[in-house]
Amino acid sequence: MVTRSLRVVMVLALLSSLCSLAMADDGMFPMSELPRLNLAERGILLSAEELFSPGATSLVDGICRVNGCTGSFVSSDGLIITNHHCAFDAIQKASTRENDLLANGFSAATREQEIPAPDYQVRITEDYRDVSEQVLSVVTPGMPYLDRTKAIERRRKELEIAAEKEHPGLRAEVAEMFAGKTYVLFLYTYLKDVRLVFAPPASVGNFGGEVDNWEWPRHTGDFSFMRAYTAPNGTPATYSKDNIPYHPKRVVKVAPEGVDEGDAVFLLGYPGRTARHKTASFLRFEQDVRLPGIVELYQWQISEMEKAGAEDRAVALKHASRIKSLANVEKRSRGQLQGLKRAGIVATRTSSEAALQNFIDAESALKEKYGTVLADINTVYSEMSTAGQWEIELAQLRQACRAIAFGFYLYDAAVERAKPDLEREAPYMDRNFAQSSQEVRVAMSDWHPPTDHIMLTGMLERLCRKPQAQTIPALKALASNIAGINGKADELIKSTKLGDPAFLDACLKKTPEELNALNDPLLTLVIELYPAWTELRSLDKTREGRLNQLYGSLIDVKQQFESASFIPDANATLRFTSGHVRSYSPADAVIRTPISTLKGVMEKTTGIEPFDTPQAVLEKYAAGDFGSFVHPRLAQVPVAILYDTDTTGGNSGSPVLNAKGHLVGVNFDRCFEATINDFAWNTDYSRSIGVDIRYVLWITGTVYNGKHLLTEMGVGE
Amino acid sequence: MVTRSLRVVMVLALLSSLCSLAMADDGMFPMSELPRLNLAERGILLSAEELFSPGATSLVDGICRVNGCTGSFVSSDGLIITNHHCAFDAIQKASTRENDLLANGFSAATREQEIPAPDYQVRITEDYRDVSEQVLSVVTPGMPYLDRTKAIERRRKELEIAAEKEHPGLRAEVAEMFAGKTYVLFLYTYLKDVRLVFAPPASVGNFGGEVDNWEWPRHTGDFSFMRAYTAPNGTPATYSKDNIPYHPKRVVKVAPEGVDEGDAVFLLGYPGRTARHKTASFLRFEQDVRLPGIVELYQWQISEMEKAGAEDRAVALKHASRIKSLANVEKRSRGQLQGLKRAGIVATRTSSEAALQNFIDAESALKEKYGTVLADINTVYSEMSTAGQWEIELAQLRQACRAIAFGFYLYDAAVERAKPDLEREAPYMDRNFAQSSQEVRVAMSDWHPPTDHIMLTGMLERLCRKPQAQTIPALKALASNIAGINGKADELIKSTKLGDPAFLDACLKKTPEELNALNDPLLTLVIELYPAWTELRSLDKTREGRLNQLYGSLIDVKQQFESASFIPDANATLRFTSGHVRSYSPADAVIRTPISTLKGVMEKTTGIEPFDTPQAVLEKYAAGDFGSFVHPRLAQVPVAILYDTDTTGGNSGSPVLNAKGHLVGVNFDRCFEATINDFAWNTDYSRSIGVDIRYVLWITGTVYNGKHLLTEMGVGE
Repeated sequence: MVTRSLRVVMVLALLSSLCSLAMADDGMFPMSELPRLNLAERGILLSAEELFSPGATSLVDGICRVNGCTGSFVSSDGLIITNHHCAFDAIQKASTRENDLLANGFSAATREQEIPAPDYQVRITEDYRDVSEQVLSVVTPGMPYLDRTKAIERRRKELEIAAEKEHPGLRAEVAEMFAGKTYVLFLYTYLKDVRLVFAPPASVGNFGGEVDNWEWPRHTGDFSFMRAYTAPNGTPATYSKDNIPYHPKRVVKVAPEGVDEGDAVFLLGYPGRTARHKTASFLRFEQDVRLPGIVELYQWQISEMEKAGAEDRAVALKHASRIKSLANVEKRSRGQLQGLKRAGIVATRTSSEAALQNFIDAESALKEKYGTVLADINTVYSEMSTAGQWEIELAQLRQACRAIAFGFYLYDAAVERAKPDLEREAPYMDRNFAQSSQEVRVAMSDWHPPTDHIMLTGMLERLCRKPQAQTIPALKALASNIAGINGKADELIKSTKLGDPAFLDACLKKTPEELNALNDPLLTLVIELYPAWTELRSLDKTREGRLNQLYGSLIDVKQQFESASFIPDANATLRFTSGHVRSYSPADAVIRTPISTLKGVMEKTTGIEPFDTPQAVLEKYAAGDFGSFVHPRLAQVPVAILYDTDTTGGNSGSPVLNAKGHLVGVNFDRCFEATINDFAWNTDYSRSIGVDIRYVLWITGTVYNGKHLLTEMGVGE
Repeated sequence: MVTRSLRVVMVLALLSSLCSLAMADDGMFPMSELPRLNLAERGILLSAEELFSPGATSLVDGICRVNGCTGSFVSSDGLIITNHHCAFDAIQKASTRENDLLANGFSAATREQEIPAPDYQVRITEDYRDVSEQVLSVVTPGMPYLDRTKAIERRRKELEIAAEKEHPGLRAEVAEMFAGKTYVLFLYTYLKDVRLVFAPPASVGNFGGEVDNWEWPRHTGDFSFMRAYTAPNGTPATYSKDNIPYHPKRVVKVAPEGVDEGDAVFLLGYPGRTARHKTASFLRFEQDVRLPGIVELYQWQISEMEKAGAEDRAVALKHASRIKSLANVEKRSRGQLQGLKRAGIVATRTSSEAALQNFIDAESALKEKYGTVLADINTVYSEMSTAGQWEIELAQLRQACRAIAFGFYLYDAAVERAKPDLEREAPYMDRNFAQSSQEVRVAMSDWHPPTDHIMLTGMLERLCRKPQAQTIPALKALASNIAGINGKADELIKSTKLGDPAFLDACLKKTPEELNALNDPLLTLVIELYPAWTELRSLDKTREGRLNQLYGSLIDVKQQFESASFIPDANATLRFTSGHVRSYSPADAVIRTPISTLKGVMEKTTGIEPFDTPQAVLEKYAAGDFGSFVHPRLAQVPVAILYDTDTTGGNSGSPVLNAKGHLVGVNFDRCFEATINDFAWNTDYSRSIGVDIRYVLWITGTVYNGKHLLTEMGVGE
């Protein structure tokens, strides 16, 4: 009896895993892969050429990158839809205590009322080509790893500069597709006059806040509208009132009818980073060292910033963007930790690597060439694991304490800018320096010394308790009196000028010696720590060089082993992913269905942030004023949708497109279980979340008087 | 456009509410109602007579009451299945530090190894008859309310004593079916030798503990087996090694194949109390006064007991049962508060009462007879709301502080037993006194003075802060120095003998004056507070008498208004309820499916209580040793099932029966949203939870070597 039942179980388990394979929708495909895909089988009614065709106009010409996010042009006058959290910095910077756009939302009734967002750039992909051969031509056998990394970096920069000369006005960027193997040069247009057009109140755009972040069901109207402008002659230009709206080559058509469960959808966007091709030893480093370290450090920083902002809305506004970004990473890291452990991903990858190793060992030619690849990769991560917390905290000192970050930028710039342009770290190259300095200036506007005092104290205390502190004179001195660090940090923060943009500007041309002579006490500490940081940077490059070469070999032999070609890990270049609107089961006996509704907003509303639905929404709901945006089966306005496409960070703002390529939603998150996407995709619980176009249109047109925007997008009623 | 969409919404909403009505499965039907029901339409293949037929043997003869729970006879040798939490006291009492049956579970390999549970009784319903007329014959028009209550109480006792004389060996109990209107006399057999046969470890039987309590999905194996014994001649008798197993008239057949989603199920059991016929003013009292008060007091008591038990397993064992019972009520009360507010039940009932009032006011005859019924009921609850916290806390002083409870029992007994038998409070009547004294003795074995000191301090501080404390000399003195209460309580607890069973036995025959002369300081405090408690008892009886009469009238006029007859509220008498195995949606975009599985146990298992699955279960799971207990579609051993029958407290242990009346589960809980069942049943979220018979059989037979019990139940493999 036992045997028969067991057999049933095993057969069912097998069937279910076969189904998973058959239904697998994973893959973030580069544009070059589109012709290989059977789009019709994926439920998509467009051809590969209609999606992307170099030299002609295609759907991707309607897609852009908005800072770290993706956006879509939804009108011929450069109107862009992206996420509320992507426009967050612009909304935050435009907010004052008196006119709190974050809290109240914003709707420009006319073009003149649109608010410039000087820290924003819109990037449009113009062209790309494979440059692997040119890049790798500089690598010689037996080259030291640090030299290898530097040579590749330098070669990439050279190719970028050459391409920019060839195509004036465009920006060139060489992206690494497969580590150490393939490189692609992309040509981009950067539009520099971007303006805020419409944002719902944060109580809509960030409804559920950190509580609901990374969760489904979701009830967040995470969208906003921006507009790109050019000079009157159509070329990129910074803000000027004489600028005119940008006219994109292609507009993404809005589909006000939305989607239903089971419908095919696809996304275009710029997913940031994945690690699908990394080894078990990498995953072990993440699981045991890096992720737990990040969770601890970020939880502490968030809680301190929240305490500081609790009593003072102005301080809270200063910290809002930073808290949001740390909390986002903190929760994602927790989800990844949980997912790595639950799904036993390290064990799975270990066993598939064991099979690969057997394959290698079985043939002497392979064994000679690849026999130690896995072991060598393992050695690098072992070294990183041993140094672990110390290196993470040394790097975090420069993140957590903002004044240290400003000081490091200043001193690093002085050191680097003394070198020839091509040998500098990227931010200090002539083509980047103005932009990177501007980013530091912008960050300074949110500097809050009392919080920075706490961060500096906490990070120095952590570092000084580590044995490695004894090797750095500045830390050794502090470590002899840990109880005194708090007072010392207070003095440093109170006496430094590093938070002052005028000080930054006055110092940007100084030499390292001149900076040292200023005797700003916090800057002096930065200078004392500088050798440790540069040593760490070299170490990282050495590791990168070694891993870069090793991963190149690993991909080679894996392709032989599996007789298949792979999709490269995400690298912030344009990718296509498709799937279906689909439920999932996060736990035994629980199903989460894929369309949330306004009823759920009401259920969650408590009146207390982050569940404080605005009065205007409550009133329209009570009045049943839903326009034509009701889902027929659910009899409610849909708010968000869930689908099993393959996404990661950077896909924020990606258009969710129906079979015809019309806009049915804007991607903004993944469910908690899908945080693990970065390491492995799973048909059972890899799900992405988008705001439903019907909610976008209802909030914009019906609740907040943005009917002119609906008209501009060609949506009637 | 708005209008058309709105119309769609309204039509859909109407359809959905019509569906709800059509599918409504609510109703806890007394046996007398069975012939009225269309059982076939409910999916039940048995006739009313096969379920219950007075004078013949029917399915209900296989059902019994086990203390406050329901049980089923599953073998002709008196084997009873009920919940783990129903056998909890017996398991706890049999546990020692060395042999912790709660932690390890228990399985008697032979009858000799079964452990007597002296505090347990098994009750079997033998017969019943309507005695409304006899009871109400003592009520005269215009009778004062206190007299009315007392007259009815006395009459009920008289009828019980007369019936017991008529049927020697049986116990008679008169139950009030509709308050102030209908009374039924039940004849019961009480079996007094009950033994523990099998209990899984608490980490199975109470898996998920308070975290999962009142929640679905659930993964708790909340079952255990007991056995009833009689004297060798078959009559009820207390424990003796010469006793023989009880032979029930009817055995409930076990269905090892279990059920699937959508299958019809029904339950038989003894639901305790519901308030479906109570007024909006009652609900308002619950929502605003009683439930919040209970939540606050119980949370405090639980947290203090947990602190006390955290460092000492012996103390934790002493508090285990009490914590479990308080936590259960605390969470239920929170659920009820949430449900009352969310579902707007007070508003719904208020508006249906307004319609009733209009109906009454429209006809002068009705108006004269019933015109003020609702207003008069409202007056009683208004009075109770005003006195509110004070009365709750005065009563709770006698619950929270165990030594006060013991002292009150002792002094109350002395006062009451001086009266003629029929005029005494029930516990002190000759027929009850031995049993009630024994219960106090049993409670003393769990007395822990340090915890009682905290409880006494906390309750006295609460009372002394109320203005009413000034009216009671003993409290007035304490109220003048609230800071001193802690020290005073410490003295009282340290010096009292009230926790000593020998002291109780020595005092049980003393007069009130003799008790007073003992000068036990805590007993003296009890005697000083005694008038306040007896005054409260009179007040409660006066209110009860008044409400009793008013609710009788209310039911009369409601039946005229609705042209329907009603099912009486639950009152711990035998009831039938039917429904289907069915999912529900607790929130927008979330569905909880109705069969949980062993996979979910594994998902929840952390190794830390209450999610510490025993090694034996983990091993059998890893080995895939599932016997024949795998659900074919889910390919897993089912653990618990969810169904939309109408249950409340007292249904714990109720058999979940399939269409043929075979056992497919044992009821043990409701989902959180269904705590509101006590006030109103709802087709959308009123769901009950049972352990799946397949899990019972797998845990008992496969994991814990209880195959002989499966054989005894007629389950082969």
